[in-house]
Amino acid sequence: MKDLETLFNPKSIAVVGATETMLKWGSFIISNILEGGFKGPVYPISTSHQSVYGVKAYASLRDISEPIDLVFVATPASTVISILEQCVEKNVHAVVVISSGFSEAGAEGAVLEKQVAAFAREHSIHLAGPNTMGMANVAISLFATGGHPRPTPGTISIIAQSGNVGNQIMLWAELQGIGIGKFVGSGNEAVLKVEDYLEYFHHDPNTSVVLLYLEGVYDGRKFFEIARRVSLRKPVIALKAGRTEGGSRAAASHTGAMASSFRLFESVMRQSGVMMATNSTELLELSVAFDSFPLPRGNRVGILTLGGGWGVITADECEENGLVLSHLPESIMRVLDEKLPPFWSRANPVDLVGQPDFFLFADAIELMVASDAFDAIIVLGLIGSARYGTRPVQATHRLGQISDEQIAAVQEGAASLENGIRETILSLMNRYDKPIYPVSLAAFPEDKIIYSRPGSRYKAIIYKTPEMAVFCLSKQYQYAQFRRECASG
Amino acid sequence: MKDLETLFNPKSIAVVGATETMLKWGSFIISNILEGGFKGPVYPISTSHQSVYGVKAYASLRDISEPIDLVFVATPASTVISILEQCVEKNVHAVVVISSGFSEAGAEGAVLEKQVAAFAREHSIHLAGPNTMGMANVAISLFATGGHPRPTPGTISIIAQSGNVGNQIMLWAELQGIGIGKFVGSGNEAVLKVEDYLEYFHHDPNTSVVLLYLEGVYDGRKFFEIARRVSLRKPVIALKAGRTEGGSRAAASHTGAMASSFRLFESVMRQSGVMMATNSTELLELSVAFDSFPLPRGNRVGILTLGGGWGVITADECEENGLVLSHLPESIMRVLDEKLPPFWSRANPVDLVGQPDFFLFADAIELMVASDAFDAIIVLGLIGSARYGTRPVQATHRLGQISDEQIAAVQEGAASLENGIRETILSLMNRYDKPIYPVSLAAFPEDKIIYSRPGSRYKAIIYKTPEMAVFCLSKQYQYAQFRRECASG
Repeated sequence: MKDLETLFNPKSIAVVGATETMLKWGSFIISNILEGGFKGPVYPISTSHQSVYGVKAYASLRDISEPIDLVFVATPASTVISILEQCVEKNVHAVVVISSGFSEAGAEGAVLEKQVAAFAREHSIHLAGPNTMGMANVAISLFATGGHPRPTPGTISIIAQSGNVGNQIMLWAELQGIGIGKFVGSGNEAVLKVEDYLEYFHHDPNTSVVLLYLEGVYDGRKFFEIARRVSLRKPVIALKAGRTEGGSRAAASHTGAMASSFRLFESVMRQSGVMMATNSTELLELSVAFDSFPLPRGNRVGILTLGGGWGVITADECEENGLVLSHLPESIMRVLDEKLPPFWSRANPVDLVGQPDFFLFADAIELMVASDAFDAIIVLGLIGSARYGTRPVQATHRLGQISDEQIAAVQEGAASLENGIRETILSLMNRYDKPIYPVSLAAFPEDKIIYSRPGSRYKAIIYKTPEMAVFCLSKQYQYAQFRRECASG
Repeated sequence: MKDLETLFNPKSIAVVGATETMLKWGSFIISNILEGGFKGPVYPISTSHQSVYGVKAYASLRDISEPIDLVFVATPASTVISILEQCVEKNVHAVVVISSGFSEAGAEGAVLEKQVAAFAREHSIHLAGPNTMGMANVAISLFATGGHPRPTPGTISIIAQSGNVGNQIMLWAELQGIGIGKFVGSGNEAVLKVEDYLEYFHHDPNTSVVLLYLEGVYDGRKFFEIARRVSLRKPVIALKAGRTEGGSRAAASHTGAMASSFRLFESVMRQSGVMMATNSTELLELSVAFDSFPLPRGNRVGILTLGGGWGVITADECEENGLVLSHLPESIMRVLDEKLPPFWSRANPVDLVGQPDFFLFADAIELMVASDAFDAIIVLGLIGSARYGTRPVQATHRLGQISDEQIAAVQEGAASLENGIRETILSLMNRYDKPIYPVSLAAFPEDKIIYSRPGSRYKAIIYKTPEMAVFCLSKQYQYAQFRRECASG
C-alpha cells in the first residue's frame, strides 16, 4: 500500500459510468478530465453509449486492450465490487471510487463498504474513497473532481476529508494565482486514509507544503507519528473541523468519521509540528506563506510604515502573536536621521512619515534586512501606493492642470518604482535568507497577490492587511522553532 | 461646542495654504475638494498664487466678502493662531487644522497646541486637529482628506485617530461598494475629541453605524458615558490599537495619546455596548453587517448548506462564538423528507446533498426563516454557484457537445436563478425581520459584495467565508443582548 505514484501520476485513465447526462458524477468526472487537458489516453466506460463527449466508449474495462493505470468509478454502490473484479483482471492497482451510498448512507452501506475494502486490500488495489469528490494533479493537467477549479501548477498539495471544501480551496487558489500541486478528497477512507496520502506527499518532490482539511482521524497514534515525520521535512497546515459538539454531530452525519476531542487533538498536533489554522481563510493563507517566504531565524520583527496608525496596529498584532519588536539599532538611526525630517519616530516601527520617496524606502528596507537586530521585516503601505497614492495627481489631471501625457508618465513612473520595490524585496529575501512581508493596504480586487520571477528561490505575497501578514509570520516562526528544537533534541 | 453641523455640512469652504505644488497638503486638500464635486463655493487662500487649479485665489480670509462656513488650514504650525484670528473676524466657527508640528513633534509644538486650543475655545471655534488628515461628507460630495478615496454615499460614519487608517478603510469601502456617511480624522484632538464626534453622530440622522479607530482616549469616564448612550441608539464598532506595550509605544510617538491599559478598557467597552473588532478587517466587516442585517432576536442558528464539509466548519464557528445550532423541527423534516434523497442529513445543518435545485433551496430557506426554532439563518454555497457551478456545463461546451446558444442560455438561467435567491433572501429578511447570512464560497474578485434594492429596509452581504459571517452574526447577537438588557434593566 506504499506507493501511490500511479494514483497521482497515471499514464492512462478509464472512467466507469461515463455519461453526457448533465449533473451526474459520471459526467462531471469525464468532462473535467477531457476538458482539463490530460495528455494520456482516456477511456469512457458505458453500457449505453457508443461515445462520450466525442471519445469512443467501451462497454467494460475488459474490452480495452491497452493497459490502464487509473480507474474512476461513478456507478451505483452495488456495482463497485464487480468493477473491482474487472480491475484485477486488467491488472489495475489504482482506483478512485466516486460512488456514494456506503457508510455515510447507513448500516447497509457500511457493510458494503467493508466488503469493498476487504476486496481492494486482498488484491493490492490502492482505493481512494468511496464517496469522494475525486483528485487532481495540476502538473499533468489532470483534473478529476466534481467541481472544475483550474489553479496554476505549484507545490502546495491538498488532502481534504470534504471534497467540497478541497475544491473550493482550489478555486480560491485559482482566483488568487496560488500554485497547487496535487489534490485528493479522501472520502470515506475505506482503504486509503489521510495518513497514507500524508506519507506519499512526504516523499513527493513536487510537494513543498501539505494543506490538510480534517474532520476526524481513525488511528490517532499512526496519524501523529506520520504527521510529525512529515513536519520535520515540510510544513503541514491543518484545519480541524468538528471541534465542537455541533460540529462533531455534523461531521458524523457527513463522513461517518469519529470526531475526537479537539483539545487533545490540538495538543498532539502541536507536538507533531503540524501548524493549525482556525478557519478556512487561514488554511490557504498559511500554506501560501510557507510556500513563499524563507523561515525566520527568530521572532524579532522590524516594521517599516508609511503611516503611524498602521504601525501601531501591526505592533499590537506582533506582540499578541509571540513576536517581538526589537529596538532600532543606533547605526540605522544615524543613517535615517540624515534622510528624514527631525520629528521622525526614531524607533521601531520606523514611520517614514508620509515621505513619498521610493528610493528612501528601498534603502530603509535594505538597512533593516541587513541588520542582525531583526529576523523578519514587515513593510506597510508602499506597495499599493502606485495606484492609490497617485490619485491626488489624477485629481489635478481631471482638474485640467496637467496633461494626458504628464499623468501617463506619473502613473508609469509610480508603477515602475513600485515594481522596483517588489523586485528589491525579492532580491533581499534571496540574499539575506530572511522573510520580508509586504502589506499593500490599498489592494485592488484585480491586483496580483503573489510576486515572483524565474530563478527566485522565494516569492513575495502582497498582504491586504497587517493582521494576516503577522499571523502567517508568527506561524512560520513557530514552525521554525519546532524544527530547531527537534534538530537540537 | 455642541453642534458640529457646520463642520460636517458646510455651505462654503476656504483652504488656507492652497497650492498646486504636488505632495503638499495644501495641494492634496484643495484638489480633493475641487475634484470631489462639492457644490458650494470653494476659496483657495494663497499669498503667492492668483489662482489654484483654475479657481481664483485670495491673499487672506479677510479678502473674501461672502460668508465662509468651514476653513481648512494647511500652513506651518506657527501661522495657525493668526489664521484663527482671521476666522474670528470672518465669524467662522468650524476649522480643520491639517498642519502638523504640534504636540506630536515635541515640547515646543505641545506649547503651541495649547495656545491654539485655548484660542479656539475662547472664540467658540469647533477645531478639528491639528495634525489631522482631514474630513469628508460623502452625501454632499465633500472629500477633504490627504488620500483620495471615493466611497459611495451611505450611513456608516468614521472617526479615526489615524487619518491614514481611516482613509484606507474608506478606500476598502469604495472597492467593495460599501456606503460611507461622514469621516473625520481626529488628529491631536486639541479641542474636538473622539467623544465630541461620537456625540454628533449620535444625533446625526444620516449615521446608522459609527466606526471608530482608537489609539487612546483622554477622558475615559466621559468617553464611556457617551459611548454607552450612543450604543443604545446605534451600534458603535471600535478597533483599539495600542493594546500591547509595543503598540502603546508606537501610538505614543504617533499621536501623543495616552494608550491606557487595554484589559480595563475592553471591559469598560463591553459595559458600554461598544462592539470591539480585533483587527482592521473585522472593523469594516462588522460595520457593514450592522448597517445591513436586522438584529437577531436570539442566538439560535439554522444552517443550510450545499456541501457537508462547509456545514461542519460553520457549526464549529457558531458554537465557538456563542451561537447555538437548534434542532431541526419535525415539521421542516417532514417537508424535506419528500424533496430530498433518503440519506439527507435530517438535522441542522441541513445538507442539501449537492441537489442543484434552486427552487428547493428557496423553499428551504423560507421554511427555516419562518420557523420559530431559528433566530438567524446561514445559507452556504448557493450564491456563487451560477458561475462556478456551471463550469461543468462550460466544459461540455468547450468539448463541443453543446452549442454557444445553449451555454449562453444555461449561464443566463443560472445567473437569473441566483439573482432570484438573492431577491428571496432580501424579501424574507424584510418580511420576517430576521437576518439571513449568505456565504458564496465561490466569490470572484469582481463579484458584488452587497445586494440591495430600492425600498428594501435591509441589505444582504455576500460573505466569502462562513467564519466571517458567523463572527458578524455573533456580534449582532451580543449587541442585541446589550440593548435588551438595558431596556429591561
